[in-house]
Amino acid sequence: MNPEGLWFREIFTDNLIFGYRVKRVLYSGQSRFQKIDILDLYAYGKTLFLDNKIQSAQIDEHIYHEALVQPAMFTHPEPKSALIIGGGEGATLREVLKHGSIEKAVMVDIDGELVDASRKYLPEWSDGAFDDSRTELIIDDARKYIFETDEKFDVVISDLTEPLEGGPSKYLFTKEFYNRVNDILTESGVLVVQSGSAVQMYNDFAASVYRTLGEIFPAVGIYTVYIESFQMLWAFTIASRKERPEDLSEEVLNIRMKSRGVENLRFYLPKYHRGLFYIPRYLDEKLSEGRVLTDADPYIWTA
Amino acid sequence: MNPEGLWFREIFTDNLIFGYRVKRVLYSGQSRFQKIDILDLYAYGKTLFLDNKIQSAQIDEHIYHEALVQPAMFTHPEPKSALIIGGGEGATLREVLKHGSIEKAVMVDIDGELVDASRKYLPEWSDGAFDDSRTELIIDDARKYIFETDEKFDVVISDLTEPLEGGPSKYLFTKEFYNRVNDILTESGVLVVQSGSAVQMYNDFAASVYRTLGEIFPAVGIYTVYIESFQMLWAFTIASRKERPEDLSEEVLNIRMKSRGVENLRFYLPKYHRGLFYIPRYLDEKLSEGRVLTDADPYIWTA
Amino acid sequence: MNPEGLWFREIFTDNLIFGYRVKRVLYSGQSRFQKIDILDLYAYGKTLFLDNKIQSAQIDEHIYHEALVQPAMFTHPEPKSALIIGGGEGATLREVLKHGSIEKAVMVDIDGELVDASRKYLPEWSDGAFDDSRTELIIDDARKYIFETDEKFDVVISDLTEPLEGGPSKYLFTKEFYNRVNDILTESGVLVVQSGSAVQMYNDFAASVYRTLGEIFPAVGIYTVYIESFQMLWAFTIASRKERPEDLSEEVLNIRMKSRGVENLRFYLPKYHRGLFYIPRYLDEKLSEGRVLTDADPYIWTA
Amino acid sequence: MNPEGLWFREIFTDNLIFGYRVKRVLYSGQSRFQKIDILDLYAYGKTLFLDNKIQSAQIDEHIYHEALVQPAMFTHPEPKSALIIGGGEGATLREVLKHGSIEKAVMVDIDGELVDASRKYLPEWSDGAFDDSRTELIIDDARKYIFETDEKFDVVISDLTEPLEGGPSKYLFTKEFYNRVNDILTESGVLVVQSGSAVQMYNDFAASVYRTLGEIFPAVGIYTVYIESFQMLWAFTIASRKERPEDLSEEVLNIRMKSRGVENLRFYLPKYHRGLFYIPRYLDEKLSEGRVLTDADPYIWTA
Repeated sequence: MNPEGLWFREIFTDNLIFGYRVKRVLYSGQSRFQKIDILDLYAYGKTLFLDNKIQSAQIDEHIYHEALVQPAMFTHPEPKSALIIGGGEGATLREVLKHGSIEKAVMVDIDGELVDASRKYLPEWSDGAFDDSRTELIIDDARKYIFETDEKFDVVISDLTEPLEGGPSKYLFTKEFYNRVNDILTESGVLVVQSGSAVQMYNDFAASVYRTLGEIFPAVGIYTVYIESFQMLWAFTIASRKERPEDLSEEVLNIRMKSRGVENLRFYLPKYHRGLFYIPRYLDEKLSEGRVLTDADPYIWTA
Repeated sequence: MNPEGLWFREIFTDNLIFGYRVKRVLYSGQSRFQKIDILDLYAYGKTLFLDNKIQSAQIDEHIYHEALVQPAMFTHPEPKSALIIGGGEGATLREVLKHGSIEKAVMVDIDGELVDASRKYLPEWSDGAFDDSRTELIIDDARKYIFETDEKFDVVISDLTEPLEGGPSKYLFTKEFYNRVNDILTESGVLVVQSGSAVQMYNDFAASVYRTLGEIFPAVGIYTVYIESFQMLWAFTIASRKERPEDLSEEVLNIRMKSRGVENLRFYLPKYHRGLFYIPRYLDEKLSEGRVLTDADPYIWTA
Repeated sequence: MNPEGLWFREIFTDNLIFGYRVKRVLYSGQSRFQKIDILDLYAYGKTLFLDNKIQSAQIDEHIYHEALVQPAMFTHPEPKSALIIGGGEGATLREVLKHGSIEKAVMVDIDGELVDASRKYLPEWSDGAFDDSRTELIIDDARKYIFETDEKFDVVISDLTEPLEGGPSKYLFTKEFYNRVNDILTESGVLVVQSGSAVQMYNDFAASVYRTLGEIFPAVGIYTVYIESFQMLWAFTIASRKERPEDLSEEVLNIRMKSRGVENLRFYLPKYHRGLFYIPRYLDEKLSEGRVLTDADPYIWTA
Repeated sequence: MNPEGLWFREIFTDNLIFGYRVKRVLYSGQSRFQKIDILDLYAYGKTLFLDNKIQSAQIDEHIYHEALVQPAMFTHPEPKSALIIGGGEGATLREVLKHGSIEKAVMVDIDGELVDASRKYLPEWSDGAFDDSRTELIIDDARKYIFETDEKFDVVISDLTEPLEGGPSKYLFTKEFYNRVNDILTESGVLVVQSGSAVQMYNDFAASVYRTLGEIFPAVGIYTVYIESFQMLWAFTIASRKERPEDLSEEVLNIRMKSRGVENLRFYLPKYHRGLFYIPRYLDEKLSEGRVLTDADPYIWTA
């Protein structure tokens, strides 16, 4: 063992530090909104950090992005339009476009420099999705877009960084915001929200997103996936206007997969759908303690 | 953020380092078998490290130990005797003794200094279990014990460190060893083996334990639990001579819990039993690639 | 190389970190004034840290303390009384008492807990000095003592931590303070001040101490010594009411050493006296840029 | 303080680690002989690392290189030719060429990739020296060159990395090698050797170089300089066939400086020459303990 040389240090909390050995720095810059580092790590391959926090890594971005996107897409009986909030790397978009039923995919990310750097240095993430004729990329504040748009969507996917004080996503997890998302969803519309860490010590945020969506949507579920490059069990909250996501049978999901020609899934498959929704007891019991997030009292992440 | 002062550095691999801020060093010593550090960490409370690898932590040792012990104990219809291999801290023993049906619990650990240090500095782990009249503590090589004993057990729990080259547990994960375990199990006997990391990049060992047990036992299952203080999804392999662990109904499990007077469970409950067995696709598909471990070609852990 | 386990991390600046491997934690506490850590380091042996900054280490505390004390003691023709400001470990006192001419040594340190911990865990530092009948130990604010005392001293030694905002030594490096020191010095009195780092990037403080003393004393000198455990070239400023320290001949110094029976010197000897005063060009040229420190505008150390 | 992000970790010994915050990676590669990293550090500006060991940094490479070159150049009464062994960055060459008396400067470095990377990414180091018409650059093994050359030189400068096992400089510090250097020196020839750390704990190598040169040359001196970016007091050994380097008067040195038109010195000046040779007692007393290095028993650096 000889851990000399170049390392990237992530301070998860004051009390816990991760050190990643760096093979190469591909890009390092400061956009208007955040510090962007794209590194080639010995442990995880190409990896994106925003404000020194790991975002997605080559070894398992497919796990994160399939876990985020596919349950929602499959929950909708026939998604033709999708809206992605955030998702700068383009991999969320890539997952949406795997569904042949999709006619239009709008992605709204506030940080054009992040999108550009991702297209250049992480092309496997978007894998051509930005060039797909069904894609519309908008560089803007997602809240503004959602409150102003006239369009409706079958699926909305929230792929945002956690709401930091002064950060761009503070008012994108509130009841007011989700009410408006509900307005622009179609009849069987589905919303999924990446909801941060699910672990015992840090799951307030996930519980609060769950609780907030429960104020608005008839069917809300929460599921967890272990993301190796985050070292974390991760939470995703899904809200549906009609079908209950966790009750969908493997048979129905298989029919949907076949009819939409969905291929190249490496993590999600219908047979694993149900299992995602088995959550650990500490999270299960925490759900009722989440608080309703509002514009007046939003969630501020402080790890 | 001011991460100055005392830290404990765990080199998970050459490419990934964890740093834990240390509040207090409770014990630090070198036993005949391993380096033992018992620290009070800001992130996790009191924590045991063996050879600089984290073993169990105050915030979630209950998760690890309930996850290891309870599924096996509940799989057996009425466990009266249990054998624990390893488990130096005494928490595995504590979990076994929660079952009122237990008349005898034998624990065999090779490292008496570890047991002594755990009793002194981690008394919450054993919580009186070493003083329970049903307990028999043997400081010896578990392989020797198992090959020489005349006794039979309803449940055998393997709570060992991973098999390092030159370490004490190298021949405690082989087909020959498990064959002998099978011999000393009673008719409905159950064996559970802590099987290391379940994560995408490092699950060979778990798959190989699974494969090896499959050579011997009629019903083998594998389940995973996220252990926050390990930053890892963890694998446990369970082998049963009769009942299939994952098929047990919540109803049956609840009856067993009540009849045995099992209380104070903080992580495991019958209603979560089934969910544990939903494993991620990468592990599921890896199971067939595990190899049968033998005395001639045992597993050597090299992270 | 296998740098696992327990380490102490000193953040010298945001841009430079030192990591010391820890063999044992001897003492760790928070006094009224500062965080105190006494560690046994693999690199340096027993080592004292105050507020996470290294203060003195077994391998070279003799270098630091002889360098601080001996040039001043030898500059005075016959020191009978000495006053030490700070110097909690007792090693500065130990060096003073090596001079047989000394009849009285007063040490004023604000932090009684530091003195107690040093006596208990670093007994080699004071080496009996606290029990010497010539010693008077006063736990109090040195500024208060100096302004109130009626006594006079032949040698005054300032062995204080750098003046941090809110720290106890902020007003112990000002012109007003040194004016009062001048008042309590005898006719041939000598003052020496540990003056922090002498290195190119961080020598403002040393230059300012030099400049401030120059406002008051007829002969002021500055000398540097490399302290291995600090990784630094260190500055000491010496002010004399009569003899010029750097002009003293080896012959005169040898006579003084013999007549006072000074023994057991491991770093300082008369033949090295002159060489100490050769300072590097960057420090030499910086001296004129130091500013006069005053109570109204004291120095605040921010590395 | 927020030491997140990109850092370079230098393991000085198993027990002491330096961490440097990285602004930018300028170059990172593996030549035939060594790992080369050229980084822009927040603490030191542009910095060269070879095999993860710091070599020279923007804030004080002038100190290192003037300290290495100027005392030797000024010791020779009129240097017309100089040979540099190693010195890949070109700054040693730059210092030589400041002397107007120089008609020819030969530099022999084994690592052409290092020279190329230095010219490209550290142009301030050579500052045009490689394009000077007096310069002859040879990419070859210096030992081979020295044993085969027919030329003679007034000054020879050894600017090599420490002799690591298996490294290229193992046989470039031996008596046999220096004997041959003596052969190719002119009558008043001077040799200077960068001799590694001078600190109390690690000065064997410096003492051994001093001792080895003492077997061959009539006048040998050793001097030390604190190099901030190395965190170290550094040793240089100088051997002269005629004039004793440390006895040269400031007056003579000033005349030489003027007559050769030496300008732009930032660290060395005649008035500081004498002071360099005052070495600390621990090094002084260690000199007699150095051993004579030979081809049969060379020095191998193991920190």
